Amino acid sequence: MVEFKTVRGMRDFLPEEAKIMRYIEDKARRVAELYGYKEIITPVLEPYELLAAKAGEEIRLRMYTFKDLGERMVAMRPEFTPSVARLVATTLRNEPKPFRLFCVGSLYRYDEPQQGRYREFWQSNFELMGSDKPEADAEIILLTNSLMTLVGLRNHTFKIGHVGVLRGVMSGEELDEKVQNGAMQLMDKKQYDDAFRLIEEAGSSSKCIATLRKLVKLRGGNLGIIEKMKQLVKNYEEALKATENLQQILKLVKASECKIEMTVEAGFARGLEYYTGIIFEVNVPEMDKALAGGGRYDRLIALFGGEPTPAVGVAHGIDRIMLAFQLQKTALKTKDERKTMIIPISEELNGEALKISQMLRDADISVEVEVTGRKVSKALEDANRKKMDYAIIVGEKELKEGSVVVRNLVKREQKIVKIKKIAETIKGQSG
Amino acid sequence: MVEFKTVRGMRDFLPEEAKIMRYIEDKARRVAELYGYKEIITPVLEPYELLAAKAGEEIRLRMYTFKDLGERMVAMRPEFTPSVARLVATTLRNEPKPFRLFCVGSLYRYDEPQQGRYREFWQSNFELMGSDKPEADAEIILLTNSLMTLVGLRNHTFKIGHVGVLRGVMSGEELDEKVQNGAMQLMDKKQYDDAFRLIEEAGSSSKCIATLRKLVKLRGGNLGIIEKMKQLVKNYEEALKATENLQQILKLVKASECKIEMTVEAGFARGLEYYTGIIFEVNVPEMDKALAGGGRYDRLIALFGGEPTPAVGVAHGIDRIMLAFQLQKTALKTKDERKTMIIPISEELNGEALKISQMLRDADISVEVEVTGRKVSKALEDANRKKMDYAIIVGEKELKEGSVVVRNLVKREQKIVKIKKIAETIKGQSG
Repeated sequence: MVEFKTVRGMRDFLPEEAKIMRYIEDKARRVAELYGYKEIITPVLEPYELLAAKAGEEIRLRMYTFKDLGERMVAMRPEFTPSVARLVATTLRNEPKPFRLFCVGSLYRYDEPQQGRYREFWQSNFELMGSDKPEADAEIILLTNSLMTLVGLRNHTFKIGHVGVLRGVMSGEELDEKVQNGAMQLMDKKQYDDAFRLIEEAGSSSKCIATLRKLVKLRGGNLGIIEKMKQLVKNYEEALKATENLQQILKLVKASECKIEMTVEAGFARGLEYYTGIIFEVNVPEMDKALAGGGRYDRLIALFGGEPTPAVGVAHGIDRIMLAFQLQKTALKTKDERKTMIIPISEELNGEALKISQMLRDADISVEVEVTGRKVSKALEDANRKKMDYAIIVGEKELKEGSVVVRNLVKREQKIVKIKKIAETIKGQSG
Repeated sequence: MVEFKTVRGMRDFLPEEAKIMRYIEDKARRVAELYGYKEIITPVLEPYELLAAKAGEEIRLRMYTFKDLGERMVAMRPEFTPSVARLVATTLRNEPKPFRLFCVGSLYRYDEPQQGRYREFWQSNFELMGSDKPEADAEIILLTNSLMTLVGLRNHTFKIGHVGVLRGVMSGEELDEKVQNGAMQLMDKKQYDDAFRLIEEAGSSSKCIATLRKLVKLRGGNLGIIEKMKQLVKNYEEALKATENLQQILKLVKASECKIEMTVEAGFARGLEYYTGIIFEVNVPEMDKALAGGGRYDRLIALFGGEPTPAVGVAHGIDRIMLAFQLQKTALKTKDERKTMIIPISEELNGEALKISQMLRDADISVEVEVTGRKVSKALEDANRKKMDYAIIVGEKELKEGSVVVRNLVKREQKIVKIKKIAETIKGQSG
């Protein structure tokens, strides 16, 4: 018999990991509530044309694409933004702006599997639509920081740039968008020489390339770096405006007085072609992959047929945050629920055991019922192995008095308790 | 420009619906905790052979199946059980039994779309592995009832049968499994005459068919129906054993003293071929589709290469429960969170507004920041439209005194509040 495996690049989350995944998802949902983002749920499977419409070639070629039984070209979503843009351009078209949307779920890319990179991965996604103001960009950064903090991560840093700076310099040389996109992609991979060769061949001046060369080396943690950027691009109007925009956003983030570690990188470019303004990523020292990435994309909604809508958003990698969480040995801050096993000493008492278990669950107590008909001693072994707090032993003798034996498995002591009093005994409100 | 749509048979959940979906998912997760089920997360995409291994032809032909870029035959899961069985047969092979697993997520079937039936749908799935005892079956029924009750549904009823009864009669005539499967599928669709013709052609006696004819008419809400079943099948040993098993399970459910509406149907068959014991569905009067379905499948794990493991499980249709929830106009029982908008009266005060918003979020208060630079009056209109509770207006004059204007949008009154006191004002702990 063949042994069944998961599809290459996909994986199961066992209970310990699933618990962390749901914990992070819950924190993301709490951040959405705290910042006024409404949750939507969109399908995993979308029309191919929708997902391909604005994805860079890199993503487009790595989508799970196929024809369904109705001969439609469909694909499993590789990111959330096209689905959100579709909704904003159609169903939500007449909603008063600004609006804030949140979604969370699984995504699919045919990448080469490695640590922190799977072919099925999870994101929470926040989009703020209808504002081109720097306070909108600042909000997306702040809520991303809130998520990392709520989850309990340490030493996470924001790498921040602005596609308008590099693009502004290239536009000043009238390089067409295709060349710009190519150059941005190369710079995203830090293949600067290839990028410069590309734009040189497209007819750019040596002055422009010299400016870009200096720009991509500019990076630093204090706002002074922005002054240097402004100096460098002062003859490129668009690039200068972009730099000022970046400066305004960072000033607002500072004004919030949240503790955020930020590094500005003038040469920072992100793969997705649709960004038009600020871009950022979040990293922790323990990992070489970003935990989150986002930015501004003012032209995207119009590309999906909606009215032009400035927008800024971020995607948080839930399973990458889980990995950081594990690497940093962060503790789950969940309420510590007492666990109880209920064991009837004979088959005839199964009904009674079920009745007591339902009574306890109605009192919001977690109860596992012994269902294999094994001996009490075997069941108790199992309860200890599972690190349960209590065992309730249902026996004929005690039942006649309306009681059961409640055994504290931690303290290794037991007493006879009236059935009506079990809940409070377990909740620890009385002896 | 083409207008992008969802793939046929799939849909978006807008905020009001998404909230109900997550509410039901949360309740399912709570039920898992209350009954001791551990959550696992398995991939949406699985090897085709895994999903096809034991699915009936009906499901197999309606899967989203395709070749991935590595030429693997893969499919989007149409149900959870094969993935859980894979895990139990491999990674969890050595876990001590019994164990209880829970999962929740989206599933895919190429069905004809109609109310309550979509090509992407959501389920929560509970599986109890390692017990062949009736108390295990009873537990699955009880936890399903707990979910419906926690969600707040009314008038839900359980339709309960046992595949061993019909199969036991057919086995008594030595009808082979293929014929039995065919007959069960026809009976599942209530095409009884076709079913009887099929087994007649396979060589069954007229006595057998007469017995089946009487059986499929037997249904009722009280346990007396079981006595009639026993009488009818008394000459079919396996069918009699199955009926007694059903009786034991129902007695245990009754003994739990939970209020559960049950109807026993001797002729009840469910489409999936892997059931070996009890089967059940949950319905509400407002809908013609089941909200949940489950049963016992003792041979399944072995079929996936694991050691023989008796098992019983249930799948709850989250989006169907949502539909029932809406049709019954059930109220969401969530904490009523106060919503606040914070509005700076000029651009220079944006940083201050952000700082106050972070302070409030740190105090676990939901705050929406005005980010479009519009006039205060326009922002207040928006706050009213969104049914917010408070607006905080950040102005130069009050800031000099360390204060802001807090406007109660419900009572339509406002006062000047020290920044340090905003949180308690909003939380209503002080005036």
